[in-house]
Amino acid sequence: MSIDERLSALNIVLPDVPPAIVAGYTPIFAPYVRTGNVVSISGRLAKKDGEVWCGKLGRDLTVKEGQEAARGVAIELLATLRAAAGDLSRVKQIVRLLVLVNGTADFQEPHVIANGASEVFVQLFGERGMHARTAMCAAQLPFGACVEIEMLAEIEEA
Amino acid sequence: MSIDERLSALNIVLPDVPPAIVAGYTPIFAPYVRTGNVVSISGRLAKKDGEVWCGKLGRDLTVKEGQEAARGVAIELLATLRAAAGDLSRVKQIVRLLVLVNGTADFQEPHVIANGASEVFVQLFGERGMHARTAMCAAQLPFGACVEIEMLAEIEEA
Amino acid sequence: MSIDERLSALNIVLPDVPPAIVAGYTPIFAPYVRTGNVVSISGRLAKKDGEVWCGKLGRDLTVKEGQEAARGVAIELLATLRAAAGDLSRVKQIVRLLVLVNGTADFQEPHVIANGASEVFVQLFGERGMHARTAMCAAQLPFGACVEIEMLAEIEEA
Repeated sequence: MSIDERLSALNIVLPDVPPAIVAGYTPIFAPYVRTGNVVSISGRLAKKDGEVWCGKLGRDLTVKEGQEAARGVAIELLATLRAAAGDLSRVKQIVRLLVLVNGTADFQEPHVIANGASEVFVQLFGERGMHARTAMCAAQLPFGACVEIEMLAEIEEA
Repeated sequence: MSIDERLSALNIVLPDVPPAIVAGYTPIFAPYVRTGNVVSISGRLAKKDGEVWCGKLGRDLTVKEGQEAARGVAIELLATLRAAAGDLSRVKQIVRLLVLVNGTADFQEPHVIANGASEVFVQLFGERGMHARTAMCAAQLPFGACVEIEMLAEIEEA
Repeated sequence: MSIDERLSALNIVLPDVPPAIVAGYTPIFAPYVRTGNVVSISGRLAKKDGEVWCGKLGRDLTVKEGQEAARGVAIELLATLRAAAGDLSRVKQIVRLLVLVNGTADFQEPHVIANGASEVFVQLFGERGMHARTAMCAAQLPFGACVEIEMLAEIEEA
């Protein structure tokens, strides 16, 4: 099964490459940067109905909602990666995720939230989707977003 | 215009490479490490009048002060990068910034603080300064600093 | 002195490669990923007596305990690196540590905690152990762990 077929089977529709920042800000950083075969993708924020999905885990959102938010961020990261790689079949390895959860000082499950993102990569890429990962709670995130994730991926030689 | 001319035009004076840690601590980590053509620069802290610039965004500093602090960190990162590269004209790409803002649990604008740093790189390097970026609020930072930034940059082959 | 002899001299016994996640979770990320000669190691959590070492610096643990926790994480990272490299003598450079301390909003010494990890690498590898480093306090960490550290290292060409 090709990656595109797998995307369909997983019922994932990739959005157009979303801007890394909202309208009104001058672009002073990039959605991604390629260095050799490695693509560094800027931290992306959770969204709901096209708006930033705000709130703190441990207070405003359930764990299940947090996982759903993380899954949505993973799908935006995939869209960005596709833009960088040209085609997701050229992805050699998802290298690393840094998963930032907007959590209270008592919310001890950022890794459970992170699973919502990790699962997407493994379901889609199998072994090539098995990444190194760090999950933590931030004191706050841009725009009050509940989840922010940055990613590093390796793509095939041109 | 050369990078040095541009530095002058931007009214930026790079300091000597500042030590990554303050006096009294044994050096057990490095200001930067080079791996192939990639330079990893240790997280640097905001300073004011030569001392660590302390305080929390959302309580002790205004957004404008935070941006000024971030701009100062960017200039220290540039000084470190110059030491690593020999000459800033050899910088191929600013790859990634991790911007840590010492913010209250309610401060939702770490990305606005981060802009104070990002702008420096784009003003100086243009497209080569467009980096991937992640901004977040930390619960605290070393010495109570208001901003800490780490950077990854690519330099030309030797 | 070989690395193994130095480990003995430092009285460090490396554990078997510990799983990056506890039992009961499906493996959806990897303990490490290799990209060229660079190994990215997942954030590892502090442990005490085989369990996650929980608590917040600035409230539940002393600085000395936090350093001990960080030292323990460094040893687990070394065990993981050995698994990735085959042999620690093939380690060319410890490139970067991201040290996450579970600290209160007032705990301003995450860098002092981080020293407990940094020292291990310098004692073991000398110059090759001198890494770039970023230390910060997180609002919380997985399972309430007091310290989490992720690492990047470069190994010799195969």
